[in-house]
Amino acid sequence: MPYSEQFLHEAIRLSGEKMEAGEGGPFAAVIVKNGKIISKGWNCVTSENDPTAHGEVMAIRNACHALETFSLEGCEIYSSCEPCPMCLAAIYWARLDALYFAGSMADAAAAGFDDRFLYEEVSKPWNLRTLKTRQALQSEAQAVFKAWIAKPDKTAY
Amino acid sequence: MPYSEQFLHEAIRLSGEKMEAGEGGPFAAVIVKNGKIISKGWNCVTSENDPTAHGEVMAIRNACHALETFSLEGCEIYSSCEPCPMCLAAIYWARLDALYFAGSMADAAAAGFDDRFLYEEVSKPWNLRTLKTRQALQSEAQAVFKAWIAKPDKTAY
Repeated sequence: MPYSEQFLHEAIRLSGEKMEAGEGGPFAAVIVKNGKIISKGWNCVTSENDPTAHGEVMAIRNACHALETFSLEGCEIYSSCEPCPMCLAAIYWARLDALYFAGSMADAAAAGFDDRFLYEEVSKPWNLRTLKTRQALQSEAQAVFKAWIAKPDKTAY
Repeated sequence: MPYSEQFLHEAIRLSGEKMEAGEGGPFAAVIVKNGKIISKGWNCVTSENDPTAHGEVMAIRNACHALETFSLEGCEIYSSCEPCPMCLAAIYWARLDALYFAGSMADAAAAGFDDRFLYEEVSKPWNLRTLKTRQALQSEAQAVFKAWIAKPDKTAY
């Protein structure tokens, strides 16, 4: 379906409403299928004690719950802001068809959110990131991947 | 706390156990605080119909629930595999002190998982990604950010 401004207005409106209500940061998203909103999500990191509870992630979880599927092919997401790397990757994993957003990464950064820094970190090889990181026991993990490849009754995603 | 091999063994063991049980893909993680495991998580994307239910995300959610906080400062995460961009950004948002992992992004890719492609996409400006993306109504979103900045009783994260 083509972009429809009403859904982006709704995502922005929701971001303000839930932020004012003390749910969390000023971010929200809605997911649309066949021209209708099928789910809404808003940032509830601080109220739910869940650092992964961003607007887009919550909207994705709610849409998948409603449709009883782990794939949102055929749906679009409207977000009040450019997604952080966590939410962007979640949008890919959910197989959403399109992303429409309003505020920019720079707008989020100016309001105190780390999105720009996170994009820089995610783009680096792991040994150059600020996060202390170490790899070990690789062959032990490879054995599990081999078992997955050989598993006859697996559900791919 | 320094790296301790026992926890990485446990993350890998769990990834195999839950994959064989049909929970989802072959990935798991544990979170450690003061030398003790405080949470475990495993991929349950297909069994829970949640594309965000990766091992690291689930371990983070479970740890935050157990500790009743949205910050895991002072904790480390041990993952059976190098995190995808969603999980890596979640690790930063959760303020974890360190990441220890076993399998590589290449190992995951060889088993059919999109991690490498996702890292490439996340590293691009939004207008160069394969995901159909469009920005609109930026000033409307900026007004919400201004309200956030001015909000006297906000909880920062």
